[in-house]
Amino acid sequence: MRVGVIGGGQLARMMIPAAINLGIELRVLAESEGMAAELATAGVGDYRNVDDVLPFASTVDVVTFDHEHVPQSVLRALVEAGVAVRPGPDALQYAQDKILMRQKLSELGMPVPRWAAVSDASELADFLDQNGGVAVVKTARGGYDGKGVRVVRAAHEADDWFMALAEDANGGPLLAEELVDFRRELAQSVARRPSGEVTAWPVVESIQRDGVCAEVIAPAPSSAGKLAQVAADVATGIAEGLGVTGVLAVELFETVDDRILVNELAMRPHNSGHWSIEGSTTSQFEQHLRAVLDLPLGATGCVYPWTVMVNILGGPTAGTLADRYPGVFEDHPTAKVHNYGKTPRPGRKIGHVTVSGADLDEVAYDARAAAVQLTD
Amino acid sequence: MRVGVIGGGQLARMMIPAAINLGIELRVLAESEGMAAELATAGVGDYRNVDDVLPFASTVDVVTFDHEHVPQSVLRALVEAGVAVRPGPDALQYAQDKILMRQKLSELGMPVPRWAAVSDASELADFLDQNGGVAVVKTARGGYDGKGVRVVRAAHEADDWFMALAEDANGGPLLAEELVDFRRELAQSVARRPSGEVTAWPVVESIQRDGVCAEVIAPAPSSAGKLAQVAADVATGIAEGLGVTGVLAVELFETVDDRILVNELAMRPHNSGHWSIEGSTTSQFEQHLRAVLDLPLGATGCVYPWTVMVNILGGPTAGTLADRYPGVFEDHPTAKVHNYGKTPRPGRKIGHVTVSGADLDEVAYDARAAAVQLTD
Repeated sequence: MRVGVIGGGQLARMMIPAAINLGIELRVLAESEGMAAELATAGVGDYRNVDDVLPFASTVDVVTFDHEHVPQSVLRALVEAGVAVRPGPDALQYAQDKILMRQKLSELGMPVPRWAAVSDASELADFLDQNGGVAVVKTARGGYDGKGVRVVRAAHEADDWFMALAEDANGGPLLAEELVDFRRELAQSVARRPSGEVTAWPVVESIQRDGVCAEVIAPAPSSAGKLAQVAADVATGIAEGLGVTGVLAVELFETVDDRILVNELAMRPHNSGHWSIEGSTTSQFEQHLRAVLDLPLGATGCVYPWTVMVNILGGPTAGTLADRYPGVFEDHPTAKVHNYGKTPRPGRKIGHVTVSGADLDEVAYDARAAAVQLTD
Repeated sequence: MRVGVIGGGQLARMMIPAAINLGIELRVLAESEGMAAELATAGVGDYRNVDDVLPFASTVDVVTFDHEHVPQSVLRALVEAGVAVRPGPDALQYAQDKILMRQKLSELGMPVPRWAAVSDASELADFLDQNGGVAVVKTARGGYDGKGVRVVRAAHEADDWFMALAEDANGGPLLAEELVDFRRELAQSVARRPSGEVTAWPVVESIQRDGVCAEVIAPAPSSAGKLAQVAADVATGIAEGLGVTGVLAVELFETVDDRILVNELAMRPHNSGHWSIEGSTTSQFEQHLRAVLDLPLGATGCVYPWTVMVNILGGPTAGTLADRYPGVFEDHPTAKVHNYGKTPRPGRKIGHVTVSGADLDEVAYDARAAAVQLTD
């Protein structure tokens, strides 16, 4: 069994232990030498170039992804050449284009924020008028400006994006969404295999700092009962409705008026699921491999009452994560450190730490303290 | 951090996931191409040849082992060349020579079966006379005949071994031991790092079939309290007394008259500790890496009330383990399958399966059933 992964980042890296356990040969097409998944790197190439991707794909039984950036043209060329691509291009388009995603989720009756595709300042002004004078504006396809998300209170605040899109042959409208008044953010991961089986992990709480996932609590506190079921049903419905294969992570808002709204989708293992390596009977990385190989899926229950994962970002000081191991291991004997083998840069995700146990306060304190020690 | 492993078997293979998590570069010196630890193989060479081992050792921060067969002459040449060898030759000699081991453990006051070094049939006859007419005879250094262990009831039954030893320049006496009347076999693993810290996992029960470890139950049933403490104390005392660094596994007999006796030692991760991958907060593979790098050791408690590991041996039929995945995964969603990537041959250890949970009967049934499905 050979699984090819396009992209050599930490998600591909974390598939390697799962592949070793199951005796699956993992082959990574990396963007460059020395990436996080170097140990399984079978070649270096440009994922936007079908001449790099197709020869790689011909050496494996199934192709999957470390990211969602492979262009539709390349994906469809692979499918035409008979490659098993999981998730396939029909599903991936919804992870690549936020307007397509909103349209499709609305068609499926999924709970989403109020939204509109807006082509110019006048349409954005109309949306603002209808939504209390504030909107979240997003580029449908990331990359025009930083992370491509902006809160606007006047239509002219998106003029630069409208201008950039007007000059882009592949440009299109922007996505305007209501600014959701949410209590907290949740994430619900599921896995689906081609023959139809879907399994859901418990819904988790995702705590963002500066727009980046900082911490995940599994399961989400106070999520027993209806909330957990609604979240699992929404993600399962999306996986089935969009024909996703492999892991699907659905970022959710829990609103102040107790609704669940879908924020973003990721069709791959996701930062919000790293807790599952230690915290669930089957990790998202093992499950993703099982799913893309169309093997029966593993049990997804929690191993511990509580698992907390905290990301480790590159800090302001020099030195590697390993330099901090003596102190961190001494002070946190139950902490599981994951080091992505990346050169630290301020703000770059270079690892994560997971702590599990019976008391949430203790577990969360320990995980946060270990992450701070690894960062500062 | 670079750790070199001499030997490319499944123990080296199972160190790879732990090394990936911690961002440790693992470099394996394998006996041949295509071994279980191929993914981390940095070179192929003869571990008995210092000219193969020394250049390999010079590329890493510390050298450790997949097996205990590296000759003392090679180990000491590494030490003289300034290589950090863990465990070192002074400790490893006790894992390489069972008579040295028995002498040392007796000196340390450790509980061992009655034993004697016997140089000829006459000395063996004396030992038989003093021990009820039966003895277990072992070659001090394995390899003269199969597994080098034989139950004898007459002195002439070891004549072939005495003759072979007489013709061997490195020959020496045989080890004669009392045939211990034991209730069950236990195994106690500990890890010790050079600066002195020792941690013990819970003692486990090891069930042998045809002289090979078939199954491990963690923790050992009815081991709470004194038994667990005695086992941990014995293994800790041995690790300290012999100056072991890394993981030490101590195979123990629990006698029908409630004594604990030391059977064998292994100075490396051991089959009896595979349960710890899922079943303990820190696996024996992660702990071994931490220990040989002299990093603070991880917590060793049980994650689940019960964990059962069953070995998968090559069966009589053709086909790979992966051929059985659809049925096994369907029937055993909580089973964790470890596939060593070896070509199946009858009786060869090609993997193991671990199941954990709250009910020992259910867990053991599930693990055994999965192993049978993977074998037949």
